[in-house]
Order: sequence, then C-alpha cells, then structure tokens
Amino acid sequence: MATLSNSTNIFWQDCQIGRPERQKLLNQKGCVVWITGLSGSGKSTLACSLSRELHSRGKLSYVLDGDNLRHGLNKDLGFKAEDRTENIRRTGEVAKLFADAGLICVASLISPYRRDRDTCRAMLPDANFIEVFMNMPLELCEARDPKGLYKLARAGKIKGFTGIDDPYEPPINCEIEIKQENGNCPTPTMMAGQVVTYLENKGFLES
Amino acid sequence: MATLSNSTNIFWQDCQIGRPERQKLLNQKGCVVWITGLSGSGKSTLACSLSRELHSRGKLSYVLDGDNLRHGLNKDLGFKAEDRTENIRRTGEVAKLFADAGLICVASLISPYRRDRDTCRAMLPDANFIEVFMNMPLELCEARDPKGLYKLARAGKIKGFTGIDDPYEPPINCEIEIKQENGNCPTPTMMAGQVVTYLENKGFLES
Repeated sequence: MATLSNSTNIFWQDCQIGRPERQKLLNQKGCVVWITGLSGSGKSTLACSLSRELHSRGKLSYVLDGDNLRHGLNKDLGFKAEDRTENIRRTGEVAKLFADAGLICVASLISPYRRDRDTCRAMLPDANFIEVFMNMPLELCEARDPKGLYKLARAGKIKGFTGIDDPYEPPINCEIEIKQENGNCPTPTMMAGQVVTYLENKGFLES
Repeated sequence: MATLSNSTNIFWQDCQIGRPERQKLLNQKGCVVWITGLSGSGKSTLACSLSRELHSRGKLSYVLDGDNLRHGLNKDLGFKAEDRTENIRRTGEVAKLFADAGLICVASLISPYRRDRDTCRAMLPDANFIEVFMNMPLELCEARDPKGLYKLARAGKIKGFTGIDDPYEPPINCEIEIKQENGNCPTPTMMAGQVVTYLENKGFLES
C-alpha cells in the first residue's frame, strides 16, 4: 500500500475508497472547468451561473475563485511574475484534489499565461481539464470595469494589469469558447448552458 | 456582491449556491477531522477506515494526507521549521475549502506543533474542527515503524524526526482521543467507529 518516493521519507498512501467510489456516490465524474479571460470578461458570472445550473441538476460543484484564494491559501503571494505562476500552480493542485474528490471544480482566474494554464492541464488526464475561454473584447471588459480596476490601471495606479500593461495570451486549443454573437453578449444562463451541454455530452454528469 | 478588501485589487466574490445548499444536496455537514500523532501511530489507517465507514453510510469524505500533498501542492516545501509550518497552513486552508464544499475532510498529518494545529483550528468555526489525537506510546510506534523511518532517525540518517530529535506536542483540548485500552490497540473499525459516533452525535451526518 505504501511505496517509497524519490524523497527518502515521503510515502504514498492508498485508500480503498477512491475516486470511482466517490463518483458513484455523487453520480457524476470529477473534473476541472478552468475559466480564463480578462478582468470583466464574465468569469465569476459564469462560475456562479454554472454552479447554480449544476446544483439544480443535483450535481456537486465547487468554485475556486482566484481572488478568494488570495485571502487564504495564496495570501502569502503577490502579483509579481513568479507569485502569479505559483498562485496558478497552487490553484491547479487544489482543483486536482477537488476533481479527485469527485466534484466538478470550477476554477475562475484571469490566468493570462498559456504556460501556467498548460501546467494545470498537465496535472490532470487531458479530458478532465476543460478550458473555457471568455473571449470578450478588451474594450467591452474595460467599459464594464465592474471593480474599477481598468480605470486604476489606465491611471498608472495598478502596474502589470492584464490587458493594459501585461499581456493576455488567449488559449489555442480550449474546449469551450464564450463569445459575443452578432455583437450581443450571451446571458449568464446561456453561458452556463453551453458548459453544461459540454459536460453532459462528455459524460461528466453521470458516474 | 463584491466588496473591496484591504488590498487594492482583490475582491470577494459571492455565489448564490453556497455551503448550505451543498450540505443539503449531500445530506451532511462539512467539517474537518484533523488526525494528529506520531509517525506509526495509525493516522492513515484511521483515515482510510473512516472514509470507508462514512462511504458505507452514503457520506462524502476526502482524505488529505500530509505525505501525498508533498507530491503536489506542497512539493516546493522541505522539512525545516518554516516549511513544516507552511505545509500545515496550506493543508488547513485546503481542508477549509473542502469543508466549505460540504465534505467531511479528513486531514492526516503528524502536525507535531500545537501552534500550527491551532492555526488551522482558527480558520474554521470551532465546532467544525475536530481534532483527533492518536495517543499511542512512542515505543509502540517505533516498534511498528511501518516506513522504516524510526530506524533511519535512530541511525542519524533523518534529522529532526518527530519523537526522536524533534518534539511532539500533544493536544490539550482535542475532541477525540484514540488510545490503547488495557494494553490493546483499538482495531481500525473501532477507531473509525469512535469518530463516526462523534460526528453522528454532533449532527454532521445530516444536513
């Protein structure tokens, strides 16, 4: 049951109740829905709407919000490059644990760098990492500016703000893209529906 | 829905599906069962047995094993004092998230220092942190030595090993104490039963 790892005194403990048993109990499959996009692109809105829609179907999900984690697990981290990377790595590791617990884990973070997102993807079997790209124009996000952060960034009061003076690298092969249709933004319900349909088609909503 | 925190650009996001809704879905209450004790005292054995017993009652639990986390979330941490403290802090933060998700989170770590355990306790409403002390004599743990670590520590090949050349501070006010009766160790089923009875009496096994 225990095997020695590379380190001299760390062992891996196995348990008889594992992911398959938990998934059967929940009648769903654990996975990570990773929502990436600019500030103001609707990540948190989608995360909330998605968790409501899943709950209404009797499915257990949990939202890991990048901002919220900075109050707890990641409160020792700032916004310099290596801290952002570590912020995303830890979030990925926790999301992996939630997926292993059988939950549909919804991670909502700007996560602007492709490499950081791919690090999280690589932690899981590929099919269990569902990258959702909030493909909204910067102008729209900036016009919304729900937290007033773009205004601060434009005034130079926040440095290294994604989209203003720090790059956002859009996904190349994301599983789901949320975007405007004919200049209209999808409603929260429509966005959640798009993700739920994907999860349903891929068999995540049954064990 | 969003309030500005002390930091200039971190907000707290609320969601309509919260802990009460998840707990109702699962028909249980989220909490942290924190198992502390010497290496070889039976922490992992209890964690496994407990997760089996809870599963047989249709309850969702998840085991956070200190050793396992060192392969993922905490793989950047070593064994010096501040790293051990950070290892336990992060585990506590993740356990808190699992409890918030509605799960019975079973954390299994030596966690030798009272201060570090109390830090984790303080993260949660007091009643939701259930400290389980594996009160087994050092001689017994050393005789078991399931991982061969006491032998290495006695030979000086591991430094700072709890119980040998680093202290274990027993809990003062733990919720549950697991110990020998008339010189006999409780079986895994008996140990799990003791914890399940506690959880049942405190109302954690219903929503």
